[in-house]
Order: sequence, then structure tokens, then C-alpha cells
Amino acid sequence: MSLATEPAPSAPGRKAAPPRVAMVGAGQLARMTHQAAISLGVELRVLANSESDPAVRAGAEHIIGSYRDIDDLRNLAAGCDVLTFDHEGVPVEHLTALEQQGINLNPGAASKRLAQDKLHSREVLTDLGFPTPPWTFASTPEDFRSFTSHHGWPVVAKAPRGGYDGRGVWMIESLGEACELLDGSTDGFIIEPLVNIERELAVLIVRSTGGERASYPVVETIQRDAMCREIHAPAPVSSKVSARATAMASEIAAVTGATGVLAVEFFLTPDGLLVNELALRPHNSGHFTIEGCVTSQFEQHLRAVLGLPLGLPSLIAPAVSTFNIVGQPDGTDPRSQLERVLEVPGAHVHLYGKSPRPGRKLGHVTVCGQDPEPVREAARLAAATLERSRS
Amino acid sequence: MSLATEPAPSAPGRKAAPPRVAMVGAGQLARMTHQAAISLGVELRVLANSESDPAVRAGAEHIIGSYRDIDDLRNLAAGCDVLTFDHEGVPVEHLTALEQQGINLNPGAASKRLAQDKLHSREVLTDLGFPTPPWTFASTPEDFRSFTSHHGWPVVAKAPRGGYDGRGVWMIESLGEACELLDGSTDGFIIEPLVNIERELAVLIVRSTGGERASYPVVETIQRDAMCREIHAPAPVSSKVSARATAMASEIAAVTGATGVLAVEFFLTPDGLLVNELALRPHNSGHFTIEGCVTSQFEQHLRAVLGLPLGLPSLIAPAVSTFNIVGQPDGTDPRSQLERVLEVPGAHVHLYGKSPRPGRKLGHVTVCGQDPEPVREAARLAAATLERSRS
Repeated sequence: MSLATEPAPSAPGRKAAPPRVAMVGAGQLARMTHQAAISLGVELRVLANSESDPAVRAGAEHIIGSYRDIDDLRNLAAGCDVLTFDHEGVPVEHLTALEQQGINLNPGAASKRLAQDKLHSREVLTDLGFPTPPWTFASTPEDFRSFTSHHGWPVVAKAPRGGYDGRGVWMIESLGEACELLDGSTDGFIIEPLVNIERELAVLIVRSTGGERASYPVVETIQRDAMCREIHAPAPVSSKVSARATAMASEIAAVTGATGVLAVEFFLTPDGLLVNELALRPHNSGHFTIEGCVTSQFEQHLRAVLGLPLGLPSLIAPAVSTFNIVGQPDGTDPRSQLERVLEVPGAHVHLYGKSPRPGRKLGHVTVCGQDPEPVREAARLAAATLERSRS
Repeated sequence: MSLATEPAPSAPGRKAAPPRVAMVGAGQLARMTHQAAISLGVELRVLANSESDPAVRAGAEHIIGSYRDIDDLRNLAAGCDVLTFDHEGVPVEHLTALEQQGINLNPGAASKRLAQDKLHSREVLTDLGFPTPPWTFASTPEDFRSFTSHHGWPVVAKAPRGGYDGRGVWMIESLGEACELLDGSTDGFIIEPLVNIERELAVLIVRSTGGERASYPVVETIQRDAMCREIHAPAPVSSKVSARATAMASEIAAVTGATGVLAVEFFLTPDGLLVNELALRPHNSGHFTIEGCVTSQFEQHLRAVLGLPLGLPSLIAPAVSTFNIVGQPDGTDPRSQLERVLEVPGAHVHLYGKSPRPGRKLGHVTVCGQDPEPVREAARLAAATLERSRS
């Protein structure tokens, strides 16, 4: 006489173990990957520096350790289906060693090296015939002299390893400055002329372990103080430029055997597109995909490194803008502005749970809509609200 | 000579404590609330039965305890800004006691009682003049006899407390069955005739502590075996019906002082809309809002109970369908079908990390698109894939 099908108290069932992903790093990229993992029922374990790392605060399973310690990396990977990354810091020799020990790395050591080691990346891209800014490797004053005799001063010098958000990048105006820079380093530098940049673009390609690829729409990125501050999708460029950037990025993913998310940063110059840099991980330029695309870059990264089918990368609205929230000089905490920012209609607010420090990425906001201008303005307003001092 | 603004190693800053929300229950509703909390930088602490509860597996901070134990409830609330709920099980006397002790409950004890105690709810709705199915409270055979002398057999009998997913609901065909039912109970029953239902509809209203309200589009819910299996937004009803349902739900939220998400379930009958049931928490009929609306019901619930401004509830696409994934009699685990379901284009897959049991809600899938039929078909295909045995 019961209307309901009473569930049996227990049933033998066929239990499937959830996929387990280990991620080196516990920053905001791991935090947002954890959110995507929850939906798919994937279990994420991260390697954190401390209990206050963003992904740990979000409740990802974690071990505390160092990405420079191969034992910590091995412990992280133990029992997981795949080892992946939320940054580019792991020493390449460790990646190679882990792979030789049979750990399933995605991306693998060879492709990950393209993002870890900018010199190697430039060499490979140049060998494969992809256009990059003119460049050379400079470890002596003579290298600077010779390069500038063709290209003139100033030059931009980049550390081959470890730079991000403008760190590890210097503008060098003279041989004197070059000597001073060289004095502080044993590694040498990639040097290139100041390129005439019309726009900076980025393309995210996802490539699964089975070789399936998906391309997100080309975005424009806008930097201030050498940090990416705005991302606008789709980029306001011709369909020809957009198709060319997508084709190049997709080809780079294929020829390098990258797995997971590959971010390719481009300079659009009067002479065409130049490849600037690669990242093999979910990327700041892809946060717009969380609300702006059918499948977020974080879910795609998980699908790809686990060898699962990829999702649709298409936009859900004609215009999507993301602004990064960066720590201000007065140290104000964006969290103190939560009430005010939530008044901005349509603003998707992401706060990473980090203590405020000047120049630190503390969150981002995304707005989706019909027309680029109002979308951009709403995102700008939300970002300004979060970065504004309460006083 | 650095191109970057070097972040100061540390700055005094003005640190803002993140809002802290305590939630009674750690099921899938708490799990998805946790995902929303991560974005806003809100810290969620849940009261779990065990370490294997869905929200605990997703990494929400938790304490293990019982929602029937007032000390556990008090411990849960300690240090949090607000206490809220992912189910309707907390004894009403505990809610009242907690509120008297100064704990900030949202929804408050008086409004929460409307969802906890169906008899009270029917009395209040009837007193306020909202249309419900004809009903009476029956605790003796005479009560059944008198009611059926007007309305005939069969009647639907509902336990005043604790029922969900068809549990606590009985179809009673005769006085003999009524006597049998009464023999097993001391509480009595709400009885009502079998209503001629054209469609079942649901409306989610969000009401913040400040009184701000937001209404999600009216959805159609489709039940099988007395469990909600499909949710389609917007409901295929006239704009008049839709406006009337929204107005009633919104009025119920206002007059009852509900805070957070209020779900109002309606029967659409040849004689108009009847209010069936209320829930004061994020609701199964609102999972479509995660990908289908600008602001999800889970984020709205957090905003509302914290007294923050509400987000836009509008649809991001003309048609959104959600199918629940329910444990099958053979005990097959939907997680074993993850690879296959991710092949369904546009399917947003949510798995709750629960062990499979027949009749248990294990996940859901949502599809958004331009036209109702293909959207519904894609969601149906994804659900069928997850519920299908591997063999």
C-alpha cells in the first residue's frame, strides 16, 4: 500500500572506485580544479606548501611538502591514477625521474619541459618553424652586444626558468645594465627586442591522453605592471587571425604531445602572430571558461589527463570578460568588499582565500552577456569594487 | 630595471575574516553548497553522520554528530555567522531552543517549521488562504470515514513529519487499510483525495535576511515511483499560470519570513494551482540553476542567509533540463559509466560520491540549449547512460 518504492536497506552493488588525480601545487588553480573534481566525483589530492594554501582551504585532500623534493612528489602520486600540475616549478629532472619510475604524468616530462624551461621552449618552437619574437640566448656581455647590433636597445631579458607575473623579466636599456644583470646570474637569459605589440592573445587547447583536442575561443589579454589583468572572449580580432592562432596552438599541442590544458600566449604584431610563451596547466587566461563556456578549463583538464572524453568548449554567451583581483599597495582585503561586489548584476565572484599582499592574485570576476562593452564595464566595476579600499 | 612591480614580501593589510556558515547535514545539497562557498570565499562547516557523507568527501569542514542532538547542533554553530540546513529533519523544539539561545538561524525556527511539519504547513497555508488540495487531519477511523464520505476513496495519507522521496506517503484504498495504517502510528496523518494532476510544478524563491527576494523560473517536475526524476525549465505552461505560481511562492516567502531558498511545489489541476509542499533549503528541483542560471540556488542560499545581495536568477539559455540519477535495483554504480556519459555533448555531470543503493539519488545531469526537445533528449540519454548496467 506504499506509494513509494522502498529502497532496499543495502544491496551488493558494483562499486566503482572514483578516479584519483594528484596535483602538484595547491594554489587557486588547484582550488578551482577541486571544484570541478567535486562535480565529476573525481578525488583530487594536492601537494601544498601549507595549510593556508587556497586548495587546502577549499578542502582538497592534501599532503604538505615541497615540489622540489622527489619523495614528496612520489608520496603525492601514490595511489592516484595520474599526476598533474598547477604550476611550472617542478624541476625537470624530477619529472623525468618520476616518469622513468612508472608514474603516470600528464602532461609528460618532455612536454611539461616546454613550459618549465623557456629556453628549451624557444628552441623547440623555432626548430618546428613556429614564429616567435627574434631571440638569442645571452650569457655574456658579448652576446648582448652582438644581438643589439642587429636589433638595437632596449632588449627584454627573460630568465629561462621560474618567471611569472612579470617576475624574471627585465627591460635592459644598455650594455651597462646587461652587465649588472649578468653579474647576478649564472643561468643566462633569453633576450629579445621590444616587439611592437598590437594585442596580446591567448588560446587554450585541451588535449587528452588519447589525442582528442578541443580549442577554446581566442581571448585578448590585457596586462598592467606585467600582470594579466583582463581577459576578453572572444578576442576582437579578424576571423583570419583567430583561426591562425587556434591552428598554431592546436598544432603545438599535437606536435609536442601535450596533455591537459595547453595555454599558448601570442603577440599580435603588424607582421602577424608571434608565439610568446606556453603553459601546460589550467591557466589564468582561461578562468572565463568557468561560467563563460559549456565546459570549464578545470573540468577539461581533469577529463584530459584521465583520458576521458572532452567537453564542449563553446561560449555560452556572445561576450565574456574576466578581471583579475590583485592585491593593492594599501593591503586592503577584497573580502571586506564582498557585500558591495555582489550588488553588481551578473558578476561571478571568485575569491581564492589568500591573505592580501600587493601584487598577489587574490581572485577574479567574470561577467557574461550579449555585448562586449557592457560586459566589460560590469566586470571592470566589480573588480574596482573588490580592489577599492573600504575607507 | 625590473619590468614588474615586485610585490612587497609582506604588508600589514586589513584582513577580513571570511564569512562562516554552518549547515546541518552533509548530503549532496551541502556538497554543492560547498562548491558555491569556495567561489565566494565563504567557509562552510557541516554536521555529518559519517566521513563518507557527500559534503565531507568534497572537503567541507565538518563535525560528526546527530541533527537530533542539540549539543551537536550547538557545536556546529559555534563561531559561525549563521546556522542553516540541507534537510528538514531537525526537531522543531531544537530549532526553537537554539534560536532562544541567540544562535542566528536562517531560516528561523518559525519558518523552518513549515517544512519540517507538514500538518503545521497545511494549517498555515489554509489559514492564509493559499489553495491546497482538500485535506484533513486523521487520527481515527472515523476521521477517514467522514473525509471519504465527501471525497470518496482512495485517499493519499501523508505522515506529518520526516517523509521525502515518497517515503511517508501511502495510498489508502479502504477503511480496512486506513485502520491498518493507524495501527502503526501514534501521530496521525494528513489525508487528501487523489487530485487530478495535469502537471507538477515547482518555484524556487530566494529571500535574504534583509527581505530581498529573487524568483527562479517555474519548472515542471516529473516523478516516477514517487521520486522526482526530471526537471524542465521553463515549465511548459501559460505565462498566466507561471506568473500565478511565482506570485504565490513569493508571497509565501514574504508572509512566512522564510530566509534562504524556499521551494514551493504545486499541482496544476483543471481547477488551477494547488500548493502541495514547501522546503526551506536548496532543493532538488533547483539543480538546473547551477549551469542553467546566472546564479545557482546554492550561491543564492549562501548570499541570502548571510544577508548579502542576491544574484540574478535568470536562465542563461532558453531550455534547461535536469535528470536525477537514481540507484538501480541491480546496484550498478553510475561512476562506472563516467567515461561513456562524458561522450554526451553538453551534459553537465554531477556525481555525489555516494555508494549505490536502489532508489538512492546518486547524482544528476543537466543540459542547456536553445530548444526543449533536444535538450531533454540529451539529458535523458546522459541519465540513461549513468543508470545503465555496465554488463
